[in-house]
Amino acid sequence: MIIITKPNITDDELDHLRERIEAAGLHTHLSRGEHRTIIGCIGDETRLAELPLRSIPGVESVMPVLKPYKLASREFVVNRTIVRIGEEASIGGGQLTVIAGPCSVENRAMLHATAAGVRLAGATILRGGAFKPRSSPYSFQGLGREALQLLAEARAEHGLPVVTEVLDTRDVDLVAEHSDMLQVGARNMQNYALLAELGRVQRPVLLKRGLSATISELLMSAEYIMAHGNHNVVLCERGIRTFERATRNTLDVSAIPVLQRETHLPVIVDPSHAGGDAKLVAPLAFAAIAAGADGLIIEVHPNPEVALSDGDQSLDIPSFAALMQRIPAFAAAAGRTMSPRAVLRGVAVA
Amino acid sequence: MIIITKPNITDDELDHLRERIEAAGLHTHLSRGEHRTIIGCIGDETRLAELPLRSIPGVESVMPVLKPYKLASREFVVNRTIVRIGEEASIGGGQLTVIAGPCSVENRAMLHATAAGVRLAGATILRGGAFKPRSSPYSFQGLGREALQLLAEARAEHGLPVVTEVLDTRDVDLVAEHSDMLQVGARNMQNYALLAELGRVQRPVLLKRGLSATISELLMSAEYIMAHGNHNVVLCERGIRTFERATRNTLDVSAIPVLQRETHLPVIVDPSHAGGDAKLVAPLAFAAIAAGADGLIIEVHPNPEVALSDGDQSLDIPSFAALMQRIPAFAAAAGRTMSPRAVLRGVAVA
Amino acid sequence: MIIITKPNITDDELDHLRERIEAAGLHTHLSRGEHRTIIGCIGDETRLAELPLRSIPGVESVMPVLKPYKLASREFVVNRTIVRIGEEASIGGGQLTVIAGPCSVENRAMLHATAAGVRLAGATILRGGAFKPRSSPYSFQGLGREALQLLAEARAEHGLPVVTEVLDTRDVDLVAEHSDMLQVGARNMQNYALLAELGRVQRPVLLKRGLSATISELLMSAEYIMAHGNHNVVLCERGIRTFERATRNTLDVSAIPVLQRETHLPVIVDPSHAGGDAKLVAPLAFAAIAAGADGLIIEVHPNPEVALSDGDQSLDIPSFAALMQRIPAFAAAAGRTMSPRAVLRGVAVA
Amino acid sequence: MIIITKPNITDDELDHLRERIEAAGLHTHLSRGEHRTIIGCIGDETRLAELPLRSIPGVESVMPVLKPYKLASREFVVNRTIVRIGEEASIGGGQLTVIAGPCSVENRAMLHATAAGVRLAGATILRGGAFKPRSSPYSFQGLGREALQLLAEARAEHGLPVVTEVLDTRDVDLVAEHSDMLQVGARNMQNYALLAELGRVQRPVLLKRGLSATISELLMSAEYIMAHGNHNVVLCERGIRTFERATRNTLDVSAIPVLQRETHLPVIVDPSHAGGDAKLVAPLAFAAIAAGADGLIIEVHPNPEVALSDGDQSLDIPSFAALMQRIPAFAAAAGRTMSPRAVLRGVAVA
Repeated sequence: MIIITKPNITDDELDHLRERIEAAGLHTHLSRGEHRTIIGCIGDETRLAELPLRSIPGVESVMPVLKPYKLASREFVVNRTIVRIGEEASIGGGQLTVIAGPCSVENRAMLHATAAGVRLAGATILRGGAFKPRSSPYSFQGLGREALQLLAEARAEHGLPVVTEVLDTRDVDLVAEHSDMLQVGARNMQNYALLAELGRVQRPVLLKRGLSATISELLMSAEYIMAHGNHNVVLCERGIRTFERATRNTLDVSAIPVLQRETHLPVIVDPSHAGGDAKLVAPLAFAAIAAGADGLIIEVHPNPEVALSDGDQSLDIPSFAALMQRIPAFAAAAGRTMSPRAVLRGVAVA
Repeated sequence: MIIITKPNITDDELDHLRERIEAAGLHTHLSRGEHRTIIGCIGDETRLAELPLRSIPGVESVMPVLKPYKLASREFVVNRTIVRIGEEASIGGGQLTVIAGPCSVENRAMLHATAAGVRLAGATILRGGAFKPRSSPYSFQGLGREALQLLAEARAEHGLPVVTEVLDTRDVDLVAEHSDMLQVGARNMQNYALLAELGRVQRPVLLKRGLSATISELLMSAEYIMAHGNHNVVLCERGIRTFERATRNTLDVSAIPVLQRETHLPVIVDPSHAGGDAKLVAPLAFAAIAAGADGLIIEVHPNPEVALSDGDQSLDIPSFAALMQRIPAFAAAAGRTMSPRAVLRGVAVA
Repeated sequence: MIIITKPNITDDELDHLRERIEAAGLHTHLSRGEHRTIIGCIGDETRLAELPLRSIPGVESVMPVLKPYKLASREFVVNRTIVRIGEEASIGGGQLTVIAGPCSVENRAMLHATAAGVRLAGATILRGGAFKPRSSPYSFQGLGREALQLLAEARAEHGLPVVTEVLDTRDVDLVAEHSDMLQVGARNMQNYALLAELGRVQRPVLLKRGLSATISELLMSAEYIMAHGNHNVVLCERGIRTFERATRNTLDVSAIPVLQRETHLPVIVDPSHAGGDAKLVAPLAFAAIAAGADGLIIEVHPNPEVALSDGDQSLDIPSFAALMQRIPAFAAAAGRTMSPRAVLRGVAVA
Repeated sequence: MIIITKPNITDDELDHLRERIEAAGLHTHLSRGEHRTIIGCIGDETRLAELPLRSIPGVESVMPVLKPYKLASREFVVNRTIVRIGEEASIGGGQLTVIAGPCSVENRAMLHATAAGVRLAGATILRGGAFKPRSSPYSFQGLGREALQLLAEARAEHGLPVVTEVLDTRDVDLVAEHSDMLQVGARNMQNYALLAELGRVQRPVLLKRGLSATISELLMSAEYIMAHGNHNVVLCERGIRTFERATRNTLDVSAIPVLQRETHLPVIVDPSHAGGDAKLVAPLAFAAIAAGADGLIIEVHPNPEVALSDGDQSLDIPSFAALMQRIPAFAAAAGRTMSPRAVLRGVAVA
């Protein structure tokens, strides 16, 4: 922690300030400049995190030296994490993994059609919403438990591990039982009760960046889950909220290399939510790979025109297959191999 | 709903589009312009809300005509809502109500000192955090149940109804039992599981605007609670996230008159979180009143320098009292009277 | 300047870094922490401003200690500046000054009607656009020189000094000759060629904050004008660009107290552009006064429905007069007196 | 133009509104819904652009049907524009063009070293700043006319056409004489006096997107130049300002496919300014190509550590050469060929 004092700080104020820091168990080290004195605080910075140093008389500004995350940091964990999803799939480790499936599980037929289609096209993990966070109380809220059952069936039949969102602390065990990976949606990135609960289960977590969360806050939410015991966290950039109105959100493509530098956790991208438009999925997916993403999560629906949610941004199966055809060239340019198709519970691979 | 077509839409595409709309039970009405055709959809617009109209061939853009909120709208509820808090306090109805108290309940002594101080200065509702949403897992997380007990004691002793935050659906009944108003924090504004649960209790809800939530989204979250059965919702502007770094957040003072025009629900402002700096509390509080707010919620601590959370933005008791002295002049200029001090359960008023 | 090093900086890198700083004429002072070394650079920080310190091996981050502005800073100029406009009007010094008039000067009749109306209602400075920055090349671009002539006439007849915008370095002398104050529009806040030219004339400058300019950048643009010789600068907050779409811009009301703390220059607010809606002018004007503004600039048109620009946000004369009736109560609450009406060149005051 | 009325509009208000629209020469077409009436305005929409329709009683909202740009729109110009730069280079038309060079021209030696280095690595256009827009009046402002002379020399010697920024309307002819393309910087994107002047010269213009300019506003600034006579405009995405602080700006990679859909003008990307960090240049450059950019503009300096401006984000020559080695694989994946090296005025190509 570095403290910069006001130009007119008195000696008494300076003494009081140093006492406060030293009472927390740190040493202080002064550099007196022409206009300001700089106080370097030497020792365990976390002890100062709780102190309202800016409110102490004579203080102008306070700057942390260390990053607030530790478990999530590449500084403390040197090897990059590979997160295993189900028995065969994984995210991280130099491969490019594609997750695909419908926004919501609407019924058995559409789920199976989608699972078969995305698997054939090369996806290795199936997504599908059971509990849906909808901004309107009057919109379709998902099939809930029934959808979890259908996802488990699809997993068994198509050999794809399953990721689905959990919204409520009371549903964590249930969702963990029926799926291979639990998703925290963008709106719940700082739902700390939920994060703590996910820290207690032994299922990988897909943590989506909040609409206005900084990269550092995303890492702190990962830290929250990890500090509660679960280190299998995959981060997902899905677009941030800016002034621009031509796209639903603004894909922060720079977040990918920044995260790859800051953390050992895998980083994937959701081009469907970032652009909010089926026509933007391909260019944003390619950009994500080029910038160094470890994977993609893409919304696919057998007939987007009748989708109960997110139809505007869903690809149909032929469009998804066409997209998958173009991906290996970008992955190769970026130095990644394609993740092999899942071989789960004896299902033969096409 | 208004649909604008692409210039090159074919007759078949136009027929298909009209069939989709009419199948949902609405009539279509065409205006053919030089470059575009405009389709007005006459009937119950909510039936179209689920349709991914933009994904239908030939559609350029889709614009709703009606606001997505109904219960929260001044168009549907003409009289302004007054929300009663406890037996004597209220928010709305031409009065200016001040809520004050510590960020976190740290112990009995500090809570009682604060309650006595803010009551004497003119606050009519006590705030105090029991469960704290902290971005770091290593920060103080609040005293939890013990704090709820302390708040109930403070209410009994000082005659101030109590508002406290709830983070977890599993705690809603417990918090409702010990407090007079339940707060939804900015980070949980779109935690729909929590909003639905709060719709089922009969306690007023203080709903804080999310850091990057639009005014319309804030109203949709109120609608969510109301649609689940609880119409006692107070909205709180507390600053939004922008590019500006000189203040922690940017108080969106314009949201006050916009909300007063759009909704019948009361609107209060949190100048402590908006600025993140004790020195900004007074000017932002005055601005909020001038712009038409129904109340304020202010962080007060007996000794901010030792506060376990938000010390930088907390007022001490003398500063709060000085602020309260200046408020009536602004309230009078804005056409509001000061809410009288609470007289609760026989406690005499100073 | 404070430099924080990477944990793995080598001794050679550290030596090289210190040499670079000392070569610029500063001393270095090291604080060695557990994970990082902090280097305090003692001496004239401006000499380091040009050095790309972050690009030197071993450097993690660089933090300036001093603010980049000096002439505009309250730290260097203790007394608050009062800017005189014409012979009688002024901005700053504990008074509240109101500037009013049309967005564009459309013709002689409307300008005189507006000038007479706003003067009677209590405005002391007349605004009126001659050269208009319009985002479309097909929109009305202002009457140019003819409008300058009409403004000079209106000044002579109504006894109100005049402020008008200048867009082009080539027009600075012409505009300075015909007006009492030159406005730099939001889009030109960082048009450094124009700022430098305005530094060379002896007319006050009204500098509007750019849509996405930080408070610090606004002060740097003021510094730019001042460093070129003209210290008569008035700052204007006029709304920033955020994600919110219910208002055209977001009035950053917090900028007022922050600027009053950082600079000795007067600060006014433009509630017309901030909200982009005539109905929002009054609440935003009141909020601005409550937060400590030194004045307001308001768009007024005799018949907004036929205005050639900004009709949606212009007040008609009766609405402006009604607004002016309510302002003194807010000004008094904020500790300001109303600026007396201008008495210019023998014009009698109503 | 579509107008939506308030639910309580009177017949007189509706008549008045229709009269205003018809007086502008358009027809009106009414769709009466349950709560609102929708008025479609048929005819030349530009005639309504000046009318403050929202200020007319009974109007709730107003929505344009047509885009405000015409000359820049793909709807009006079917073939994609290829802009020729100098005698041999070009931007657009399925090739990927790389512009490279120093932020500022500091002296002859560094300019020649850079020009030789970037040419050898495959750049086909040289950038170099003569007039620099610096936020501080105390920073290096560029060598001005001397730099223009040095750029002209470098062009002659190295066979690379030259792009440089112009800040002042008075310098347009001078800069046009010494360079092959004139750059409008982000801060001047809405400097309409400058845009109009650039419309009158016959040199290509590189128009950078403003920090908080929407895609639509960028296109309107291009329209401004085009409407004044110069159709050789290249658009440049260079990062927008958001809340994220880990990068200097946020590269809006989605703007690339949106612009490619909306306009026939070429679109390039500046990864140096977008990230503000030399280490981010490569991933952002790759992402830009993958998303469909027609080119890149990259800051290169022989020794970034001593650069007089932008040293933190400049690549040295070996890093630039290494980047150029990796680009063809991404360009090929995106369906583009590399622009051949310039052969200008008899200079042999390596």
